[in-house]
Amino acid sequence: MAFSFSDFAATDGGVTLPALGKIAVVGSGAVGCYYGGMLARAGCDVTFLMRSDLAVVQERGLTINTGGESIHVAAQAKETSREIGPCDVVVIALKATANGALDEIIPPLLHAGTMLVTLQNGLGNEEYLAERWGKERVAGGLCFVCLNRTSPGVITHFDHGSISVGEYGRGISPRVEALVQALGIGGIEAKAVEDLVCERWRKLVWNVPFNGLAIAANGATVADVLEDEVLRTEARGLMEDVRDGAARLGYEISKEFADFQIERSWSMGKYKASSLIDWEAGRPVEVEAIWGEPLRQGRGAGAQMPRLGLLYALLKKVAKS
Amino acid sequence: MAFSFSDFAATDGGVTLPALGKIAVVGSGAVGCYYGGMLARAGCDVTFLMRSDLAVVQERGLTINTGGESIHVAAQAKETSREIGPCDVVVIALKATANGALDEIIPPLLHAGTMLVTLQNGLGNEEYLAERWGKERVAGGLCFVCLNRTSPGVITHFDHGSISVGEYGRGISPRVEALVQALGIGGIEAKAVEDLVCERWRKLVWNVPFNGLAIAANGATVADVLEDEVLRTEARGLMEDVRDGAARLGYEISKEFADFQIERSWSMGKYKASSLIDWEAGRPVEVEAIWGEPLRQGRGAGAQMPRLGLLYALLKKVAKS
Repeated sequence: MAFSFSDFAATDGGVTLPALGKIAVVGSGAVGCYYGGMLARAGCDVTFLMRSDLAVVQERGLTINTGGESIHVAAQAKETSREIGPCDVVVIALKATANGALDEIIPPLLHAGTMLVTLQNGLGNEEYLAERWGKERVAGGLCFVCLNRTSPGVITHFDHGSISVGEYGRGISPRVEALVQALGIGGIEAKAVEDLVCERWRKLVWNVPFNGLAIAANGATVADVLEDEVLRTEARGLMEDVRDGAARLGYEISKEFADFQIERSWSMGKYKASSLIDWEAGRPVEVEAIWGEPLRQGRGAGAQMPRLGLLYALLKKVAKS
Repeated sequence: MAFSFSDFAATDGGVTLPALGKIAVVGSGAVGCYYGGMLARAGCDVTFLMRSDLAVVQERGLTINTGGESIHVAAQAKETSREIGPCDVVVIALKATANGALDEIIPPLLHAGTMLVTLQNGLGNEEYLAERWGKERVAGGLCFVCLNRTSPGVITHFDHGSISVGEYGRGISPRVEALVQALGIGGIEAKAVEDLVCERWRKLVWNVPFNGLAIAANGATVADVLEDEVLRTEARGLMEDVRDGAARLGYEISKEFADFQIERSWSMGKYKASSLIDWEAGRPVEVEAIWGEPLRQGRGAGAQMPRLGLLYALLKKVAKS
């Protein structure tokens, strides 16, 4: 299987847009709409697979509120993957708890060279895709972003927004570089990463405490966690558990990186982590991807992770997954 | 100050009842009514300080449902401690979160030799009484019992029921032996203990996980904790944290004791720990006495107690205290 992203098409501004071909976005919640919307804004051929927001987006397109401006993207949207047909890139931004639905969604989107890029949280999603559709197709992206879908077809961007993209079990490839470049043209701070799994552990340093404590503390915003000194100390303690698990698996994450995850969160204010929003709405929470799988992998490698163990047990009990 | 419990009065059955003198029970919830009721049943002169249940108890006495039988105790009850006046023994079974009220309640109950016996949970209550009214007065009792106040004046006893009584900072005394004997005559499995603080830590081995997880898991009964293998493992892990804290302070609690705390809990079934009942009713929870103070004391002595730290942070956030 050969991927070629060496052909470039010129955008209006004269910046060369890599020819990514036809892109589908599966799971058009806040994350899918934001990154897919920014690819469409860059000039890429993007179609969103949607159900609840379909009519609104077909009629009015997508609206992305960010930094005081309101960006309008005339997005294509379809209700089934069969209507979309084979694509060159499929961006998967479904909740990991809905992965079962991919068995039906993915096949109509595939040709021999289709790249699957999961933007899902936690651990285990690349493995899930690789087992079913071949590991050579699979790449992943880690989004560091505060977003909410505020009404149908409307995404509100609160803070941050960078994305790290990498291959699954391989180094940086031309197709990953092309995707990063296109995201950059759309206005996203994107970078290619050599080791996706290491990046996933780095992301868990934030997600494990802030998504988890949000629910376990019965509805705590980022500010609620940070402003309560006892809870903030535990958030930092949970980061130590994640660092320990990662280190045992060969991924060294510095103390300074963890400290910075606390520091950089102050600007998020009353932001509700995505898992909290799901939990409050009675939707499933990615308990296994964010807490269960890291705990199992870390403990399998000899880490204790006592705080993560307790947090996982509580979340498994209080959240649907 | 000299205490004398060497005079004995004969009960109807011919068993000698130690002359404890006049007893007041302060904080007439389930625990106060149960142990005070059993002392009254033994023939002791017991008066309950009550507010909400006062009229019912003055009219109909106390009812204690236990093991299929319904025990009726013709209890004396008053609304203020001034009406009760000086006593020889004051049993304190108020929630630790209401300790502030003792400043007004206790003084009218005191004479030079009044013994104060706290049946309250956790750590810090003997210290609280000692600071205010002198350490020579203070003793404590640890109740291992499943009780609920099921309606005004009615206590339902589900399981267990033993009590361990000890002096604060001294070995077993005649007054403690007398109290133990009177409780025994009332039908309670009571024993005198040499080291009250050690016994408090032993009790925390159960209270820390089962009261704490009950709330943190958003309303879990004892059975809910035990039947969920992940949560049960964390309950046992929390017991290790308590053992560690106790050990650093010089109190060795065996692994077997902790294992037995899990085993003995199966018979409690769907019992709701007292903290859970308080929490569900919107009442304050003894967060500092049961989780905060043990954590501070254990960490002060060099223990890490990572699970307890997280649990305390969550409880402090979700419960009034």
